[in-house]
Amino acid sequence: MQTTPETIDTLIHARWIIPVEPHDSVLDHHAIAIHEGRIVELLPSREAEGKYRANVEHHLDSHALIPGLVNAHTHAAMSLFRGLADDLHLMDWLQNHIWPAEGKWISPEFVADGTRLAIAEMLRGGTTCFNDMYFFPDETARVADNAGMRAVVGLILIDFPTVWAANADDYLHKGIEVHDHYRHHPLISTAFAPHAPYTVSDEPLQRVVTFAEEMDLSLHMHVHETAHEVEEASARNGLRPLARLTQLGLLSPRLAAVHMTQLSDGEIAQLAGSGASVVHCPESNLKLASGFCPVQKLLDAGVNVALGTDGAASNNDLDMLGEMRSAALLGKAVAGDASAVSAAQALHMATLGGARALGLDEAIGSLVPGKAADVTAIDLGALETQPVYHPTSQLVYAAGREQVSDVWVAGRHLLKARELTTLNQASIIERAHAWAEKIQATDEHPGT
Amino acid sequence: MQTTPETIDTLIHARWIIPVEPHDSVLDHHAIAIHEGRIVELLPSREAEGKYRANVEHHLDSHALIPGLVNAHTHAAMSLFRGLADDLHLMDWLQNHIWPAEGKWISPEFVADGTRLAIAEMLRGGTTCFNDMYFFPDETARVADNAGMRAVVGLILIDFPTVWAANADDYLHKGIEVHDHYRHHPLISTAFAPHAPYTVSDEPLQRVVTFAEEMDLSLHMHVHETAHEVEEASARNGLRPLARLTQLGLLSPRLAAVHMTQLSDGEIAQLAGSGASVVHCPESNLKLASGFCPVQKLLDAGVNVALGTDGAASNNDLDMLGEMRSAALLGKAVAGDASAVSAAQALHMATLGGARALGLDEAIGSLVPGKAADVTAIDLGALETQPVYHPTSQLVYAAGREQVSDVWVAGRHLLKARELTTLNQASIIERAHAWAEKIQATDEHPGT
Repeated sequence: MQTTPETIDTLIHARWIIPVEPHDSVLDHHAIAIHEGRIVELLPSREAEGKYRANVEHHLDSHALIPGLVNAHTHAAMSLFRGLADDLHLMDWLQNHIWPAEGKWISPEFVADGTRLAIAEMLRGGTTCFNDMYFFPDETARVADNAGMRAVVGLILIDFPTVWAANADDYLHKGIEVHDHYRHHPLISTAFAPHAPYTVSDEPLQRVVTFAEEMDLSLHMHVHETAHEVEEASARNGLRPLARLTQLGLLSPRLAAVHMTQLSDGEIAQLAGSGASVVHCPESNLKLASGFCPVQKLLDAGVNVALGTDGAASNNDLDMLGEMRSAALLGKAVAGDASAVSAAQALHMATLGGARALGLDEAIGSLVPGKAADVTAIDLGALETQPVYHPTSQLVYAAGREQVSDVWVAGRHLLKARELTTLNQASIIERAHAWAEKIQATDEHPGT
Repeated sequence: MQTTPETIDTLIHARWIIPVEPHDSVLDHHAIAIHEGRIVELLPSREAEGKYRANVEHHLDSHALIPGLVNAHTHAAMSLFRGLADDLHLMDWLQNHIWPAEGKWISPEFVADGTRLAIAEMLRGGTTCFNDMYFFPDETARVADNAGMRAVVGLILIDFPTVWAANADDYLHKGIEVHDHYRHHPLISTAFAPHAPYTVSDEPLQRVVTFAEEMDLSLHMHVHETAHEVEEASARNGLRPLARLTQLGLLSPRLAAVHMTQLSDGEIAQLAGSGASVVHCPESNLKLASGFCPVQKLLDAGVNVALGTDGAASNNDLDMLGEMRSAALLGKAVAGDASAVSAAQALHMATLGGARALGLDEAIGSLVPGKAADVTAIDLGALETQPVYHPTSQLVYAAGREQVSDVWVAGRHLLKARELTTLNQASIIERAHAWAEKIQATDEHPGT
């Protein structure tokens, strides 16, 4: 019996599909059928030919398709500070370089140009969604929207005044305005982003908890980044920061707690019970000598773990493939066990783990029918990934971001054979040059 | 007064030159003059135009030129096992996968094909010299010679018989034959490569020390890779392996001791006094959960530190740019100090530190007149390294191997705008596929 082929938008055939759900599965010679931005079906390529007639068809004969990578923690606009101040003690770095530079340069234009640079880098590296925390979230949202990128824009909150807002009321008011503007947007969502326990006091945090519940939003916060942070808070309040956040009602499935290098076994159990997610930023933690997040212990306890690059001032790239690799390698060393944090687990953290941390796991994070078609294609045919015994292993341990060939967000082809389709790369680079010239002139004389 | 331009082979103009000597220096808009395989001069580009008439002239307007990277520890042929067995406990990995695969597959053809794959990857990643340890070093040398690659070929020695040699006499005899064959070769040199303290007994080690002195060769050996190794040796001999090697006379400026994750302060002082080098393999140590090499402590004590990728079965790439980044990031975390292991130090380890560990620091490792023209060009104009405040920082923390555009070994242009000039990439990949098909069939049934 012959059936009429169903007409769809896009059919992508690939040598391998790694759907992330079911865990650690690899489909050989499969295709993914996409219509109106969503995944219709995954099926063997030879069946797909008869079943679907696609407006656009791709044959990626040496590639692996994975869910688009989710960068669960970044400060996108800081790309313009990439490499401005490296190899410095944390406080020297912050006080003499990053904060003065931010104080001097942050503006809507800076955030727009920096975010555009970051989005271009992320798309070229296979990232389809990022969870941001920075000033002028309205600009971040606008630039992401124009690029067709999926983003969770953090409604930042911090105790001190900045060029973005004057006080807690102002931060919350402006944040909620951004939220309202994008509340029905298909790709842009918002989360409350109180900066850190040591920079936001109790009263605004309590308001954030109330708002987050009323508005059904996630919470995105740096927590237990360094031992110093924990010691200082304990000395000041008699409470470790996580305990204080728990008292204030922040510890819930809404919370994406970023860094978390300092965790007792009791705190790990408490996190597991709460349903909160941890966003692991291995390269930032290494570079700033912050400490080691006990990733395998968290996974063993059942905590959802996501991955983030952090901003480009503290990494210095937004390369989620590299971050997966670092997470898997470091996770083994920290656990003292070469079988810890497997390649499949690293890929899970970078996709479905991230989606769950952002409250988006029903929409993205794995290649299953009904979810948005956020898809990344990686060419494993390059010399650097030969031979291929296990595609997931090659992807995590051997592939470089340059092997990302194509990226779709909600079915839209944003990176096409390594060319950005919605962003002008030359103009982005030109703007970065212009900013660097101005910024460098002032950074070299921080006292003036 | 006009002078007649001097005719030379090659003149390379670059936006930046990072010569490694003097330490942490960057030259803007300079050129490097090359004649008969050697560096003649580094000088401002505008002066070079009048002073030299070059047969070939390159203008690399957004690139940094650095000394070719020195991969101070690898097992090149193991590239054919890349990703064969990951995420396994060390002993499971060795006993059930790597050793059976080696026992079954190692042959002159395997070593030739695997080494060719490795050299192609290394050249594409900016590496111009590698220090190898594997069976059939005659094949390794032959393939490196054909490719025009600089290599130090390890004359392997191990207590048990392999397809390469039957016993200590045989290993030494065959090794010395390889040495004799290449003793006047401009690019291929040899080093004694006793595998590890736990696999080579006292008597052959003593002979190696004697031979190394007579023949003026380096020693290349895995030492203190894991805590387990040290504990077991202490229990067996009442001596830590380094103490035993010291008694046997191996601890000298000839020794390149690889891994060294387990070191007391006394041992660090002893290493410094001995003039021995440490070859740090950060990614291999992480992946196999071997431990953490105290790099900043070694540097502070004055120990020469080199960098190696290890083989592709335990990394899984031969990417020295990535290894520099990992070394700098991990070095900070291990030292608990964000100012430890700076970008300039990581670059030093990957170039001059490596050259010194191999006894080649008079010939290579920095861009100074008289040294061989082993040069790597990295395009910092890519979006991923924008903007450029500090070229060394961008190189180490942000650049990817795909930004390596050109590589010269002894003045010969081996990678030209990312194309290999002496190796056939398609045929290398085809051979890797053929090996993988055979190997995978047996690895999936290790018991049969």
